[in-house]
Amino acid sequence: MIIIMEPEATDQQIQNVIDTIHSNGMRTVVNKGIVQTVIAAIGDTHKFSTDLFEIIDGVRKVERIQVPYKLVSRDSHEDDTVVTVAGKIKIGGDNPPVIMAGPCSVDTEENMISIARIAKECGAKMLRGGAFKPRTGPRGFEGLGKKGLELLAQARKETGLAVVTEVMDARDLDLVCEYADMLQVGARNMQNFSLLNEIGLTDKPVLLKRGLSATIDEWLLAAERIMDKGNYNIVFCERGIRTFDNKYTRNTSDIAAIPVIQRISHLPIVFDPSHATGKWNLVSPLSKAAILAGAHGLIIEIHPDPEKALSDGPQTLNYKNFKKLSEEIERLISVISSTSPV
Amino acid sequence: MIIIMEPEATDQQIQNVIDTIHSNGMRTVVNKGIVQTVIAAIGDTHKFSTDLFEIIDGVRKVERIQVPYKLVSRDSHEDDTVVTVAGKIKIGGDNPPVIMAGPCSVDTEENMISIARIAKECGAKMLRGGAFKPRTGPRGFEGLGKKGLELLAQARKETGLAVVTEVMDARDLDLVCEYADMLQVGARNMQNFSLLNEIGLTDKPVLLKRGLSATIDEWLLAAERIMDKGNYNIVFCERGIRTFDNKYTRNTSDIAAIPVIQRISHLPIVFDPSHATGKWNLVSPLSKAAILAGAHGLIIEIHPDPEKALSDGPQTLNYKNFKKLSEEIERLISVISSTSPV
Amino acid sequence: MIIIMEPEATDQQIQNVIDTIHSNGMRTVVNKGIVQTVIAAIGDTHKFSTDLFEIIDGVRKVERIQVPYKLVSRDSHEDDTVVTVAGKIKIGGDNPPVIMAGPCSVDTEENMISIARIAKECGAKMLRGGAFKPRTGPRGFEGLGKKGLELLAQARKETGLAVVTEVMDARDLDLVCEYADMLQVGARNMQNFSLLNEIGLTDKPVLLKRGLSATIDEWLLAAERIMDKGNYNIVFCERGIRTFDNKYTRNTSDIAAIPVIQRISHLPIVFDPSHATGKWNLVSPLSKAAILAGAHGLIIEIHPDPEKALSDGPQTLNYKNFKKLSEEIERLISVISSTSPV
Amino acid sequence: MIIIMEPEATDQQIQNVIDTIHSNGMRTVVNKGIVQTVIAAIGDTHKFSTDLFEIIDGVRKVERIQVPYKLVSRDSHEDDTVVTVAGKIKIGGDNPPVIMAGPCSVDTEENMISIARIAKECGAKMLRGGAFKPRTGPRGFEGLGKKGLELLAQARKETGLAVVTEVMDARDLDLVCEYADMLQVGARNMQNFSLLNEIGLTDKPVLLKRGLSATIDEWLLAAERIMDKGNYNIVFCERGIRTFDNKYTRNTSDIAAIPVIQRISHLPIVFDPSHATGKWNLVSPLSKAAILAGAHGLIIEIHPDPEKALSDGPQTLNYKNFKKLSEEIERLISVISSTSPV
Repeated sequence: MIIIMEPEATDQQIQNVIDTIHSNGMRTVVNKGIVQTVIAAIGDTHKFSTDLFEIIDGVRKVERIQVPYKLVSRDSHEDDTVVTVAGKIKIGGDNPPVIMAGPCSVDTEENMISIARIAKECGAKMLRGGAFKPRTGPRGFEGLGKKGLELLAQARKETGLAVVTEVMDARDLDLVCEYADMLQVGARNMQNFSLLNEIGLTDKPVLLKRGLSATIDEWLLAAERIMDKGNYNIVFCERGIRTFDNKYTRNTSDIAAIPVIQRISHLPIVFDPSHATGKWNLVSPLSKAAILAGAHGLIIEIHPDPEKALSDGPQTLNYKNFKKLSEEIERLISVISSTSPV
Repeated sequence: MIIIMEPEATDQQIQNVIDTIHSNGMRTVVNKGIVQTVIAAIGDTHKFSTDLFEIIDGVRKVERIQVPYKLVSRDSHEDDTVVTVAGKIKIGGDNPPVIMAGPCSVDTEENMISIARIAKECGAKMLRGGAFKPRTGPRGFEGLGKKGLELLAQARKETGLAVVTEVMDARDLDLVCEYADMLQVGARNMQNFSLLNEIGLTDKPVLLKRGLSATIDEWLLAAERIMDKGNYNIVFCERGIRTFDNKYTRNTSDIAAIPVIQRISHLPIVFDPSHATGKWNLVSPLSKAAILAGAHGLIIEIHPDPEKALSDGPQTLNYKNFKKLSEEIERLISVISSTSPV
Repeated sequence: MIIIMEPEATDQQIQNVIDTIHSNGMRTVVNKGIVQTVIAAIGDTHKFSTDLFEIIDGVRKVERIQVPYKLVSRDSHEDDTVVTVAGKIKIGGDNPPVIMAGPCSVDTEENMISIARIAKECGAKMLRGGAFKPRTGPRGFEGLGKKGLELLAQARKETGLAVVTEVMDARDLDLVCEYADMLQVGARNMQNFSLLNEIGLTDKPVLLKRGLSATIDEWLLAAERIMDKGNYNIVFCERGIRTFDNKYTRNTSDIAAIPVIQRISHLPIVFDPSHATGKWNLVSPLSKAAILAGAHGLIIEIHPDPEKALSDGPQTLNYKNFKKLSEEIERLISVISSTSPV
Repeated sequence: MIIIMEPEATDQQIQNVIDTIHSNGMRTVVNKGIVQTVIAAIGDTHKFSTDLFEIIDGVRKVERIQVPYKLVSRDSHEDDTVVTVAGKIKIGGDNPPVIMAGPCSVDTEENMISIARIAKECGAKMLRGGAFKPRTGPRGFEGLGKKGLELLAQARKETGLAVVTEVMDARDLDLVCEYADMLQVGARNMQNFSLLNEIGLTDKPVLLKRGLSATIDEWLLAAERIMDKGNYNIVFCERGIRTFDNKYTRNTSDIAAIPVIQRISHLPIVFDPSHATGKWNLVSPLSKAAILAGAHGLIIEIHPDPEKALSDGPQTLNYKNFKKLSEEIERLISVISSTSPV
């Protein structure tokens, strides 16, 4: 940690900083510059908050040099982590991008089976679908709950697709674990620390969505929390962030987050074009863009009849468009091997 | 709801929209303009999402005319709501602003008693303090839990101050209700719908903090959810939002949200200058600004020795500064009666 | 325009709105709903601001139905516009993406000739380079001015590449027009209306960068202003927007803006991965992503020795990496024809 | 400047950084930590960009310790600067807040005289009004130009109020200087560097509005540029920033920027509640809030008949409300002396 003093800091104030560093078991290197004094605290600084020094009189600024995350960082694990779902699906590393597809909300048995068959036929390896749905307002449809999980399991049995579904409440975790192959943490729960802690105690693979306005660092720290409890099977999911303009897209697709995460962390990252854009006719160009940016997979909302879907109709692809996209992605993947990132 | 068609929409597409409106029990008024057709859906539109129409071919845009909240709105309750805490403290309406003060985290018995006494002496009516603390990273101090609640209760016994403290997990709700006079919902949990639902089933007053990047509408809908379950004792708390610049302040204080909420809703609103600014030397000017903007109260972090506080030291006032601020606010309140908002 | 009245609006207030509409030469359609009255103003509404009605007592909200831009809209020009630069380079429509490359700032003759040759060899059609440079602080390098323009012209003569360069001040416009094949409007000048007006009076092709925090609508209106003066040769350039997180990227790449603009407008759009990311090692993945999202071109910073470039070193590709990227894009373009957007 | 190396940086890479520092005339202090090496560059670092080091292999991050502005900083000028307008009006320091009032756009002679009289009667010291108006779209009213300046001068003659008005184009500067007592730089031109440079060469007082999404540092640097050219008479004007929520307010009022600027800089700062909120009924509470936060003045839009104003009607106060606000501010000012910021 680097502690930068005010130009007018007194010798006593400088000494106070040095004493605080020593009393916390760290060493100091002091640079008395022409304008101001700069003190480096060396040692196990990640244990301490910058607060420790910011509060001392005469301190202008405190800079952290070491990053606050450790387990998620490539510094601690150089090779790509490959997360295995349902014992067979490999996400990350050099594995081809994994397509996850399905409805926003699980609705009828007939639809789930039909969607799962189409998804499989188009090359998807995983089935998505919400049994528990977060809704901004109090009077919307909040999912079928256990019944929804059963329908997902049935569709899995019919098709062999693995199931990823959201868990919103630590009290539902055992139930969801019984049915799901992968747990989804939704954007609104990315900082629900109780939930993250409990998920960290399971061994289920986790799809960790980025919070609506979470920084990359906060997102990494949410993963760090899960890993800290013991669960290392984490896949990041970029799903768009909130910015000043949402007239033409529901969120702003932060495509650069894909290669950024891959440089900082060894964990895989996938992209959700449906929530990121909120418009079915932007799903195809953004899916292809994400693949070229290096995404390890895509999670896409599809429905036989988006007009009748129980939620998120406008961002949902119908079968015809999903088939077309799947074929295009197939062709793209075949040229990617020769176009890896610099 | 107003459905605006594309200029090139076909008669069949227009008819599809009309049919959808009718089949959902609403009436239509159709304006065939020179450029494009606009269809108004009249009736119980708040039951439906705009999705219902956005997905139909030929539709350009759907505008909601009625607001999606109802119980929180002044349209449904013209007079100011006054929330009563601990049977005696009145927040809202023409009551003088209520000061809530205390440490970020509850630490020692000695400190809690000392802080509570000072808070009372300076005119505070309520004691704040965290027993359960949300922390971005996994290895920070997360609060004393039940022990912290007991210390709060003890300080209340000594001073008569009412206690407001955060509940982060629905599983802790019964425990927190046992000790607290008012439940705080933190910024990160403003859209933790499971938690809001459970709190809605209690009758404890609620301090509902605004999410870090929650729109005013999302904040109102979080309150709507609690009211929808039956708990009407809600106080909003503005605590700063996330914007593009956080170099000099932790968050951006959205002071205008205070009069905005007061025009839209009948519920009271208080301001948290400590989290909004993140700097103790901005707490005083922003507190006074909030009072003049119409805030029904302030929630301020204080500590006898901010350098030794277990968290949030840099934004915490020491006793000397808190006393000074309290006296200034006292004087301001005496002139406000004659300077009410236009 | 749709004028939505307050539920408690009086008949007189409703009549005031109707009178205002009529006195401005528009027709009305009035819907008296159960909750509130909604009035549609029909006619030449784009001439009027929503202000006209928002100020009338009893009005809750005014919604514009027609978009405020006209000339840039696909509604007024269905086919893609192709902008021709230097009489030979075609940007837009089905033409293959155009690569523009060069240094941030023009520096030495030797470098410019060398860069231009490499750019050409790698398939670039245009040479970029700043002779006038905007700098946030007052004491940075602000470009070689006329000397820089001469060096660009010399490099064009040697290689046949067309030249695009920024004009920052209306007073430099004649000079820049003498040398440049295409005028660049920088992000900071996207709302410099004097400059846009003057550029609109020339017939030079324009590369219109998006303002740092400009909405899509504001960007379209900046182009509308240029077209309104008579210059129809406009190419949009997405270069990243300002959001809450700039720790790992200089800006947030709004890749979705590419297909969004293409749906709303007939004008072409290119992408600037260097400014959008600010990191040379993100230029390659984002360039490829933009091409797949439909970009009509890329504008990339390159330099033989980025460490010695006069500005923007960290986001500048060296020759080796630029060659690699060019080859990858070449291969990608060959598969795109068969992967057009849904 | 602090250069932080990657943990795996080689000795050669470390040496490259040290050589670069020395070859630019600075000294080094090198700390070889357990995890990574940190190098401090000491000397005249404000001459160099962080780019110089970011581009070197093995460098992880470069932190600037000294701020990039100098003349605007309190470090270089401890006492408050008081800016004098028209030889008599004092803005800044302990002087009472200065009220500037007037229409958004100058319209008729009759209105201007009437507004100026009311403004004076209510205690305003300065008259505001736009003769040159920036408009997002190309077909709005863009001001009366020279005729508008003449009307402002006439109103000044009648009332003795000083005149502040916007200059948008360096080519209009001489003309505007002839009529205005203070030059306004609008939000959209805060980074129009040509304009700032020219204004820096005059000796007119400047009202420097904050750009829509300008950071505090960028705003300080815009002032630094003007001072660097020789003009030291600068007053900052906070007018709201762009954030993710603009449903209920046109911009987000960054009230904390007022005390922040006062801590960093010796220059005065005023607040513009009309543009910051965009709603006349928020002007009063936000004006009072700004005064309590320490603003050295307010600039408020007023008009005898806001419904008929040529622009910005919805955010404009009528006379009755302006009188009421003026009286309230008068009373507030009388108590402020005893409630200065901590």
